[in-house]
Amino acid sequence: MTTTRFIIASSSDPAMRYAVPYHVSDPFIYIEQSGTKTVLIGILEYEAMREALAGSDIVVEKLEPYLREAKERAPNAPRDALPIVIAEHFGMLEGEIVVPPSFPLHIADLLRDAGAELRDARPFSPERAVKRAEEIASIEQALGDTCNAFRHIEQVLHEASIDTDGTLHYKDAPLTSERLKREVEHILLDHELLASEGMIIAGGVQSAIPHHEGAGVLRAHEPIICDIFPRHRPSGYFADMTRTYWKGEPSEQYITRYIAVLEAHVRALVTIRPGATGAEVHAACTEAFIERGIETADDTGFIHSTGHGLGIELHEEPNLSPHNTAPLVAGNVVTVEPELYFPGWGGIRIEDVVVVTEDGYRDLTTYPKTLEDSIIM
Amino acid sequence: MTTTRFIIASSSDPAMRYAVPYHVSDPFIYIEQSGTKTVLIGILEYEAMREALAGSDIVVEKLEPYLREAKERAPNAPRDALPIVIAEHFGMLEGEIVVPPSFPLHIADLLRDAGAELRDARPFSPERAVKRAEEIASIEQALGDTCNAFRHIEQVLHEASIDTDGTLHYKDAPLTSERLKREVEHILLDHELLASEGMIIAGGVQSAIPHHEGAGVLRAHEPIICDIFPRHRPSGYFADMTRTYWKGEPSEQYITRYIAVLEAHVRALVTIRPGATGAEVHAACTEAFIERGIETADDTGFIHSTGHGLGIELHEEPNLSPHNTAPLVAGNVVTVEPELYFPGWGGIRIEDVVVVTEDGYRDLTTYPKTLEDSIIM
Repeated sequence: MTTTRFIIASSSDPAMRYAVPYHVSDPFIYIEQSGTKTVLIGILEYEAMREALAGSDIVVEKLEPYLREAKERAPNAPRDALPIVIAEHFGMLEGEIVVPPSFPLHIADLLRDAGAELRDARPFSPERAVKRAEEIASIEQALGDTCNAFRHIEQVLHEASIDTDGTLHYKDAPLTSERLKREVEHILLDHELLASEGMIIAGGVQSAIPHHEGAGVLRAHEPIICDIFPRHRPSGYFADMTRTYWKGEPSEQYITRYIAVLEAHVRALVTIRPGATGAEVHAACTEAFIERGIETADDTGFIHSTGHGLGIELHEEPNLSPHNTAPLVAGNVVTVEPELYFPGWGGIRIEDVVVVTEDGYRDLTTYPKTLEDSIIM
Repeated sequence: MTTTRFIIASSSDPAMRYAVPYHVSDPFIYIEQSGTKTVLIGILEYEAMREALAGSDIVVEKLEPYLREAKERAPNAPRDALPIVIAEHFGMLEGEIVVPPSFPLHIADLLRDAGAELRDARPFSPERAVKRAEEIASIEQALGDTCNAFRHIEQVLHEASIDTDGTLHYKDAPLTSERLKREVEHILLDHELLASEGMIIAGGVQSAIPHHEGAGVLRAHEPIICDIFPRHRPSGYFADMTRTYWKGEPSEQYITRYIAVLEAHVRALVTIRPGATGAEVHAACTEAFIERGIETADDTGFIHSTGHGLGIELHEEPNLSPHNTAPLVAGNVVTVEPELYFPGWGGIRIEDVVVVTEDGYRDLTTYPKTLEDSIIM
């Protein structure tokens, strides 16, 4: 009884991108059985992929012979016959086939009709949560390069002037979220980082709306949340990093709440070690806020999870959420990003990425985050 | 009997991106019944999405009430109960549910176990192939802005010098594919175009390897294929455009073959009208090459389809391939990109994007493509 990992997807599918470290825009086929890894791909991609995967343990085969056989078998519906031809060739129908959640439903139906035992079991799900050394290095490099964006943001805010109406002005034009995001994207690009999922530079009341990307002119004395989460193009791994800035003087309440977020962040960090659960790490944040009398309601204050896994996907396992009672293990890579949202007032977030080590954690984000660092004069 | 369109996906799924014109990185839920469109999304995205979709006909609801009900019903597996809770609430189980191919297989299984009649039928597949005026405008804008990249490439090639060994030199450094691609990406970014799927700037023998992205120093007197296919971030629609250049003097054979490709390209264009099939358009190219004695084998000469549909996906319906016997209709948007590949010699490709009109076609790519335009001195 052979178990087969079977993926039909483009590289935008995380299981495929994890299995095959090369970007292809169109769907292709990955088959793994007892450690033997095979890619079936059309002639348009065949040569380029062979070159890219030279030296890897993946065998690259042309898809066309299988397609020809499918055409012979079912001249009017060769695409429907193709999965069966491939499944038979690789002897998949005798064992279990493990597929990702995105596996094309009509092909799943065809395979099951042909007798396949097919299970959506997130191939690589447990492996992907425990990063290998080279994966950690990829994430660390992406994070290190992302710091250049934050240096630039600080430089721009430093050079910006404050107009009489409190709006920011930079190099002869109003400083908008859009303009600052554009500048950041150029810097990311110089480091082979692509903001494929967008980014957040949101000021004032927008900073209190989770996932608001930010729009319009930025203002002095109000929080500016900068959350940058680009993908490192060569490796495919994400960075994810947030700092909150003020140009000028934050109010006392902003200061108090910034210190609270930073304390929650640090208390979460020091909770992280193998054996601790995501729920425990999250509870460390919650307690820090409750001790200071800060709300942890559904829509005000500390409203969401402390963090999430990071890797080939921006959000993956394990979560640092109250619902995750599974123990962390060495090699997990997670964000630690407690944040406060007060509608109409603003938001504050501080986010680092850490890897769980044998005896604790290592912070992969080596960038300042004290209160003084967040106030730009 | 209600038919429900049901999508559970992030915006990276084309069906979702088509249904909901706003980018979300994590999966959310779209339900359409008798023209009523509903999005269910968690509180982290709720406010930002409501703001983005204000004025549209999509109702945005919070997911949390459904999740709470699922938790009450199945405290140990609320995520499994959630699709059933939603399906029942919307009365989906009484009718047919149409889902995209990527619909999560385990959720499909749960719904079918609950009695749902579920069909993978590519929601919006026929609609998506016939573009609305605003979609055509989005593609046209993306193409127009992409022309800036080609102007820049021509400028760089013009300014580049030829070293004694035939390699190109630009601004005190060798001109590599990688460097030119980086410059192009910056220009694209200035026009809100993201090279999310990469790009091709491949010279010499690399230009004869389909989908080789290009690497290393570019050389004079050899073809340089530039294929740029960025996504216009605000609209989500793709551009796709190819020109082939020579810095310096192409050989006689290059010239002959360039003229052959251009003729095939134009003969394909003038074949395009409502009622013509993709196969007929492709045959126009094939005939042009055969008349000139150029190979149309599997791996040499004119080896692949003439074009593909373009829209919210880089490759979508309809194809201009020998297998597509369905008639084109007004509103189809397709690439027209005949190309020649000669392994070890090089490749030549010319690609425009056209929209099928009531009485023919309109070329949305208004950029020079004569032989003279392709030779940069």
